[in-house]
Amino acid sequence: MTTKDAPGRLMAAEIAEQPTRWHRLLDDGRPTIADIAAQIAAHRPRFVQFVARGTSDHAALYAKYLVEIVLQIPAGLVSPSTVTVYGARPDLRDVLYIAVSQSGGSPDLVQSVEVARAQGALTVAITNNDTSPLADAAELHIDVLAGPEKSVAATKSYTSELLALYLLMTHIAGADDSAATLLPELGEQVLKADDQVRTVAQRYRFAQRLITTGRGYSYPTAREAALKLMETSYLSAQAFSGADLLHGPLATVDPQVPVLAVVPAGAGGEAMRPVLERLADRDADVFGVGSPERIANLTGGIALPDGVPDALSPLLEIIPLQQLALHLAIARGGDPDTPRGLRKVTETL
Amino acid sequence: MTTKDAPGRLMAAEIAEQPTRWHRLLDDGRPTIADIAAQIAAHRPRFVQFVARGTSDHAALYAKYLVEIVLQIPAGLVSPSTVTVYGARPDLRDVLYIAVSQSGGSPDLVQSVEVARAQGALTVAITNNDTSPLADAAELHIDVLAGPEKSVAATKSYTSELLALYLLMTHIAGADDSAATLLPELGEQVLKADDQVRTVAQRYRFAQRLITTGRGYSYPTAREAALKLMETSYLSAQAFSGADLLHGPLATVDPQVPVLAVVPAGAGGEAMRPVLERLADRDADVFGVGSPERIANLTGGIALPDGVPDALSPLLEIIPLQQLALHLAIARGGDPDTPRGLRKVTETL
Repeated sequence: MTTKDAPGRLMAAEIAEQPTRWHRLLDDGRPTIADIAAQIAAHRPRFVQFVARGTSDHAALYAKYLVEIVLQIPAGLVSPSTVTVYGARPDLRDVLYIAVSQSGGSPDLVQSVEVARAQGALTVAITNNDTSPLADAAELHIDVLAGPEKSVAATKSYTSELLALYLLMTHIAGADDSAATLLPELGEQVLKADDQVRTVAQRYRFAQRLITTGRGYSYPTAREAALKLMETSYLSAQAFSGADLLHGPLATVDPQVPVLAVVPAGAGGEAMRPVLERLADRDADVFGVGSPERIANLTGGIALPDGVPDALSPLLEIIPLQQLALHLAIARGGDPDTPRGLRKVTETL
Repeated sequence: MTTKDAPGRLMAAEIAEQPTRWHRLLDDGRPTIADIAAQIAAHRPRFVQFVARGTSDHAALYAKYLVEIVLQIPAGLVSPSTVTVYGARPDLRDVLYIAVSQSGGSPDLVQSVEVARAQGALTVAITNNDTSPLADAAELHIDVLAGPEKSVAATKSYTSELLALYLLMTHIAGADDSAATLLPELGEQVLKADDQVRTVAQRYRFAQRLITTGRGYSYPTAREAALKLMETSYLSAQAFSGADLLHGPLATVDPQVPVLAVVPAGAGGEAMRPVLERLADRDADVFGVGSPERIANLTGGIALPDGVPDALSPLLEIIPLQQLALHLAIARGGDPDTPRGLRKVTETL
């Protein structure tokens, strides 16, 4: 692959492609998702477990909030090692077991799903690869239709996973999913911040470390932003839920450690208010991505469009942060398409 | 409190006190735990949810492994914001809901337990304060009997929580808990590494960032070690499960970023073998805490005693890492008893 002439070419194209991919999922994927949701609803699951790694684990974390808030049943994120390393064979009757993976190729996820299925769970794979081992292993499969993802740093597969999970949970709950149809247009608006983000990236050119934070639905955004920055720019980016930040890690924050805060208009952003106050007490340098009101008093910020329900905000919030990872990597002389030390499909047991 | 003359005096005393506290919990706490375990077993819970923050969240993560492996039922960690910020009221019948907190004072945990109880869960509080609001809010309460904890950085309350959770899960499963009786003596042995750890701390005197890693039961150890280092020494310490480290964050590892790996003798340590190989490929500086065999080929290491079951190893593993946080903070001119920006009881809603 010759990307040396245009570092980040693949990642930039895949970031820009996201609204088109969401459109496709809404048009072509929704009927299948509605059908799978009906099959799941008929099983009346009482507990949901997710298994995923890396970027897809952040999509699973997002979906855990959806399950608890929209489906109103308890949910958990599985540690695959309980099954693959310690040989646990838990009783999974009445459990909906959802594996999320871009490639559908991680052996530990495949084994986790096989065991879950044998233990009585209803298993669903959500992948970007219809013919993957994970899609085969699960009873039900949802293709997120993001198209081939070539950049090592996952972007479009992440937001396509978020959208597929949103549609799935909304349909299982029998709720209205029409707010999602606004997303492609809003995504195109958010993409226009690219020039502004390129300028912002210069501020972090020499940063060694950085903290990201958010609460509720936006906590997965903070986690995913930190991972992108680590993968592409090799800086030490740490994500904390706003609440957890106050339990210890706040001590590491001083004016030399930039903070990226995700502060959407809704309840998750409102819950960040006391966190922003404590950060201000410490004279922290806080850059926000969120509603115009919430970013007004910060060091700087990228404004997101109004009128997005809390549960859909994560699809938009992550875009400027993906752009930041891209531009920062390039500013630091790297190529985000081919980060050192990484492979596209990670194989762990 | 005058700690200026002897920085870290409180933390050092509380680290050293741990085996004595475990002894007390085994002698005085075990009958109550056995009784509560019998009440829980009679309810035949089908799912377990944990709610906790900070250090106690790492104890909850440890217990999640115990539930999945020993009780063989699914478990999850609750995001309190689903209830406190988004108003979720999930169906929690057949759910065992366990809150873990040193102080028992966090308002968001109290509210989470109140809601869980109203929604049909069997609620248990595990705290170090018999008269706390959290102990009152839950139907059942286990006192971890660690005695007053004065240092802001929690140490003895953490391992006492681990032991209480081990005894609880072992008794619910009707399994043999006798291996735990060896812990106080083994703990005293591990404490003797203190001088060696003080020397090791000098190696990290000027480190800006650091990575901790472990798998399975030892992943919570990596998380807790990172939090202690952040709280006391203000460096950017990031914890990854060995498997997740290979999914992206590996790119941030180079010879300038020290890695602390938790590699006990058992299956969790064995599963770290491919992770250590990938770290070696990147010429990483890896310091281990674990079995003599596994640390032999690393940059350095603290050896742990043999013959400890996987599930109990975390109580011993964390001791040298607590000592490292203490000595590194002092070496860097700080006072780990009174870290900047932190309060002993963190109040978030």
